[in-house]
Amino acid sequence: MDKQTGYVTRNLLATPIVMGKEVLAVFMAVNKVDASEFSKQDEEVFSKYLNFVSIILKFHHTNYLYNIESRRSQILMWSANKIFEELTDVERQFHKALYTVRTYLNCERYSIGLLDMTKEKEFYDEWPVKLGEVEPYKGPKTPDGREVIFYKIIDYILHGKEEIKVIPTPPTDHWTLVSGLPTYVAENGFICNMLNAPADEYFTFQKGPVDETGWVIKNVLSLPIVNKKEDIVGVATFYNRKDGKPFDEYDEHIAETLTQFLGWSLLNTDTYEKMNKLENRKDIAQEMLMNHTKATPDEIKSILKFKEKLNIDVIEDCEEKQLVTILKEDLPDPRTADLYEFRFSDLPITEHELIKCGLRLFFEINVVEKFKVPVEVLTRWMYMVRKGYQAVTYHNWRHGFNVGQTMFTLLMTGRLKKYYTDLEAFAMLAAAFCHDIDHRGTNNLYQMKSTSPLARLHGSSILERHHLEYSKTLLQDESLNIFQNLNKRQYETVIHLFEVAIIATDLALYFNCLFFRKRTMFQKIVDACEKMETEEEAIKYVTIDPTKKEIIMAMMMTACDLSAITKPWEVQSQVALLVANEFWEQGDLERTVLQQQPIPMMDRNKKDELPKLQVGFIDFVCTFVYKEFSRFHKEITPMLNGLQNNRVEWKSLADEYDEKMKVIEEMKKQEEGNTTEKAVEDSGGGGDDKKSKTCLML
Amino acid sequence: MDKQTGYVTRNLLATPIVMGKEVLAVFMAVNKVDASEFSKQDEEVFSKYLNFVSIILKFHHTNYLYNIESRRSQILMWSANKIFEELTDVERQFHKALYTVRTYLNCERYSIGLLDMTKEKEFYDEWPVKLGEVEPYKGPKTPDGREVIFYKIIDYILHGKEEIKVIPTPPTDHWTLVSGLPTYVAENGFICNMLNAPADEYFTFQKGPVDETGWVIKNVLSLPIVNKKEDIVGVATFYNRKDGKPFDEYDEHIAETLTQFLGWSLLNTDTYEKMNKLENRKDIAQEMLMNHTKATPDEIKSILKFKEKLNIDVIEDCEEKQLVTILKEDLPDPRTADLYEFRFSDLPITEHELIKCGLRLFFEINVVEKFKVPVEVLTRWMYMVRKGYQAVTYHNWRHGFNVGQTMFTLLMTGRLKKYYTDLEAFAMLAAAFCHDIDHRGTNNLYQMKSTSPLARLHGSSILERHHLEYSKTLLQDESLNIFQNLNKRQYETVIHLFEVAIIATDLALYFNCLFFRKRTMFQKIVDACEKMETEEEAIKYVTIDPTKKEIIMAMMMTACDLSAITKPWEVQSQVALLVANEFWEQGDLERTVLQQQPIPMMDRNKKDELPKLQVGFIDFVCTFVYKEFSRFHKEITPMLNGLQNNRVEWKSLADEYDEKMKVIEEMKKQEEGNTTEKAVEDSGGGGDDKKSKTCLML
Repeated sequence: MDKQTGYVTRNLLATPIVMGKEVLAVFMAVNKVDASEFSKQDEEVFSKYLNFVSIILKFHHTNYLYNIESRRSQILMWSANKIFEELTDVERQFHKALYTVRTYLNCERYSIGLLDMTKEKEFYDEWPVKLGEVEPYKGPKTPDGREVIFYKIIDYILHGKEEIKVIPTPPTDHWTLVSGLPTYVAENGFICNMLNAPADEYFTFQKGPVDETGWVIKNVLSLPIVNKKEDIVGVATFYNRKDGKPFDEYDEHIAETLTQFLGWSLLNTDTYEKMNKLENRKDIAQEMLMNHTKATPDEIKSILKFKEKLNIDVIEDCEEKQLVTILKEDLPDPRTADLYEFRFSDLPITEHELIKCGLRLFFEINVVEKFKVPVEVLTRWMYMVRKGYQAVTYHNWRHGFNVGQTMFTLLMTGRLKKYYTDLEAFAMLAAAFCHDIDHRGTNNLYQMKSTSPLARLHGSSILERHHLEYSKTLLQDESLNIFQNLNKRQYETVIHLFEVAIIATDLALYFNCLFFRKRTMFQKIVDACEKMETEEEAIKYVTIDPTKKEIIMAMMMTACDLSAITKPWEVQSQVALLVANEFWEQGDLERTVLQQQPIPMMDRNKKDELPKLQVGFIDFVCTFVYKEFSRFHKEITPMLNGLQNNRVEWKSLADEYDEKMKVIEEMKKQEEGNTTEKAVEDSGGGGDDKKSKTCLML
Repeated sequence: MDKQTGYVTRNLLATPIVMGKEVLAVFMAVNKVDASEFSKQDEEVFSKYLNFVSIILKFHHTNYLYNIESRRSQILMWSANKIFEELTDVERQFHKALYTVRTYLNCERYSIGLLDMTKEKEFYDEWPVKLGEVEPYKGPKTPDGREVIFYKIIDYILHGKEEIKVIPTPPTDHWTLVSGLPTYVAENGFICNMLNAPADEYFTFQKGPVDETGWVIKNVLSLPIVNKKEDIVGVATFYNRKDGKPFDEYDEHIAETLTQFLGWSLLNTDTYEKMNKLENRKDIAQEMLMNHTKATPDEIKSILKFKEKLNIDVIEDCEEKQLVTILKEDLPDPRTADLYEFRFSDLPITEHELIKCGLRLFFEINVVEKFKVPVEVLTRWMYMVRKGYQAVTYHNWRHGFNVGQTMFTLLMTGRLKKYYTDLEAFAMLAAAFCHDIDHRGTNNLYQMKSTSPLARLHGSSILERHHLEYSKTLLQDESLNIFQNLNKRQYETVIHLFEVAIIATDLALYFNCLFFRKRTMFQKIVDACEKMETEEEAIKYVTIDPTKKEIIMAMMMTACDLSAITKPWEVQSQVALLVANEFWEQGDLERTVLQQQPIPMMDRNKKDELPKLQVGFIDFVCTFVYKEFSRFHKEITPMLNGLQNNRVEWKSLADEYDEKMKVIEEMKKQEEGNTTEKAVEDSGGGGDDKKSKTCLML
């Protein structure tokens, strides 16, 4: 100092002012007057005086720090507020956050450069390079190997009149890039703070103002924006601190907080992109599924023969009424086909013919004309439902049809229709046909154990919710929407009934809600109706309360779903084998795919126990349903009779088997008597809990 | 004060210490000694002295504020750090964030109660209520109408030994809930600060320590966690400030910041759930698609007849070699079926028979045995590819087959095979068959205009990327993976070739990359090979450089894709009509669906211009390809000959049309001569830009 100023320092009294570990200032007294050195007393005065000075200094410094921290948390809160507003893309997210916090940034101007994230080029873009016709890229690269390309610059002007400029695909000689500083930051990931830009070699390009505003760069703070995967996604550059001073370490700290937060928040923009892709892939798959499952014109023609009959080419040329008449004529006669009978059997009928039978039932309940269902749409829908059923052993289109037919018979022959409007009957019949659509031949428990996508989507009633969703998806296609001419309220009623009816086929719900806990609900309705004197009274009692109608409907769905057990023995014995086979196939899958021992009901090695299981199933699950329904409407008694008859048959088979087993047991005991060692027990351990096994049919 | 203390205040000198708008303290001097009041001088001394006192007070207060703000920004940064780590569910996210910031919370214990978000109950749960058998819920509800049910409590103990307790489905008499405070907060959304808990009616339940740790509640700060939709999602409760004092407004401020941030961040947990659902729905749709498109056992049998022949039931009983021989025998003879010929026509062959022809080609290039392709898998794959093609007018399975057959012919008859390994030829043939799978009969531009899910997923080469993705999806199913016995490196080669080959069929790329900008690439290779003296030299020149092989392959795909234009006139004239019809159908869609006027090529009102368009297409697009290939390998000349012959035919039709038009024009002019008015010009305005129209065929 002396050399520079020519002053002569002879003696010196100095002390630092310290806060924490930081030296805020140094105070000095120079050249004692009238003495060769400072005295002990001087030192005392000096230090006492400093107590006051330092407290003021510390106060101001703490105040400064407080402002910094306060700005920091404001910046964080406001960015978070914007970032969590919605999922959006990186440009919009950065823009929203940065624009909101602009006043806290304390600079005249700032710009965000967004980097191209493409790592790999298209193969055809690389050909010229690989052939040696084009020089390979030798320019700057990010640490993870991408070429440094700023595809967009957003330039925020805060000095003078506020303005935002967006520069897509900026040229490399744009003033924000020409210094090379953003590129340097993108290459190295360093934070760069230039205290005096004009004196720095990076900024020699600046001969005058950067643009028409007359503004010049004085100092610069530039930071990378880095995501959680450590990729540099962009560069934020702040220019000219508002008070004219260069940016200090606290400014760096604030800016780093902001860029770090923005970088982390890229999880959300990445998610946004992923979501969109996923959504599109889902839509594509669903669209393809529709393309593949929708009935072709030829398939429609195989049922709708009116074109030949009417000698027309285009369906619009024909009046709906004509179509209805002709289609009805072409369909099977419901009486000769036993469609009104509880004893109906699908076995002699082809699957294609069953589509026609299904169509016929809608005409029989007189809903086609009443609800203006276009015949072609109804046909396409019925065909689609048929195609929606997979070719599994039991839960296939034949089962779907049977449930529809039984619903029809309960309504008409069983006279339950009287409680329901035509619209409700329409919905119930349609729901019955759809109730097991796309069944995979394995039950809910298997979906859970194999953690299939279905089980991951639906928490409970897994398959039923899938049948419902798929049924509803079909209706969303106008060319399949048999309810297209209903008004909004009617349509909502239909959808609600679909939900109740299809979900009700989950036997687990039957057990939980109806059978054990609230079995009383259905029973109570039946009890109450039994006591009524007139039919009108009973109808009024039920129809006045939508909940009662829903409960009866849910019970009807169960009665339909289990109806195979009420069929004539020659049918039941065949169908029971189909059910059993599907169970055994699931058992096989459990063994091979899940590496688990199946329960006895699904274990084909325990085939012989089928009759006993059937008896249990009849006693614990079915009898209640058909007994109550027969009590409710005596017209339904044929179902109970069928059930009881089948019980006799299964029981005698079970007894036969027991007899056989007893004989074997006897022989074993005799052998045991011969040897002293105890016989090795049956593995599988299916002995004691046989009573509860029927419940596992869910 | 005097009343309370008995002191007598006679006079008083007082001044506040103010910081901003806040009064930090009031200083008072009471009862002047030896005088009846304070003098002016006293006041001066007092205020001078206070300058020092107040600065110290302000310093300490600022320091306190600084600490608050500093904790606040630390809490935000650390929560953000955790929240942006990954998408996860609400429990995990809250836990991670809260655990990380625990030291900044300055309390002895805190707990988070998570609320059940279910708004609607299952219909069957509402039945008993609706029937009047169960009382409706009358307990506390959130402002948006949910029942207040805490399904989980996370209890963080920071005093003494740190511990975290998770209480799933906590009973209502759990100490965190029994006060009723969290329920009150969940009901009203208020922030509650209880300065002295034991004195508050809410905490009268507390007779002693809440648990075995001996800890008692002294003061409580409880806040709702609210998401951006204003739903209360949970309640955060903080107990006992660490210094024993009650929580003050700054503590409230910090806690509010944290809960607000956590509440906002629920966007991410909601997104997480949505993503999972979307993913599952996509998987379900894809699974269903597979179920519906996979060849059924019967369909496989229609091709693989070995079972009858070998008299076996199960395929495993048969050796692969046997299968190969038998299948080969059953397939069409390639020579009599013209499969080696450029002039091959699919028109006389059924679509089912084409599957067999396709299979045969794989045997002809000897890859089935060499790469251990299971015959059943190959059959299933070929069948699936056939089924993957939609029944559109031109881009159907027949087109797919033709491209495969031409690829085969180029390799074998055209002798291009010599540049490729067997594995590469295998991949190229398979890719050729797949190249237009699931084409919708509309082009990329239509996808974009109609913003189909495909266009939203893929930015460029929309359909081609879809064909590629679908082809790859098929291979992911092991029962369809014809490349299942390749090693990893081989498999990657195949996938890469699929990508190059299928994407190369985007004619837009052909124009951009090959034809205009880099047409030279293929031409250069042909030029170089022409100059070579021996075949070996040419083979070496090409095979040493994978890029050259890729470029030739890409060009081969174009030659295959356009090969219909080289077929005998009787075939070309039929196929050209199919292409035209598909274009016109797209034109119809543009008119009806998009409400746009189609370009002339797709406008069925401009049918007559087809010959002219064909001539342009041959001249501007096709000639280069087949000329270069004929120059490259003279064996390919038949394609060029076919092309040139077809040009003659189309040209003569075009001339004929021109002639006709000229006559009409003449007549018009004569009429014009007769009338003074000018004739109304043709609408559609397709006159001038006819030359460029061919490019629109992309």
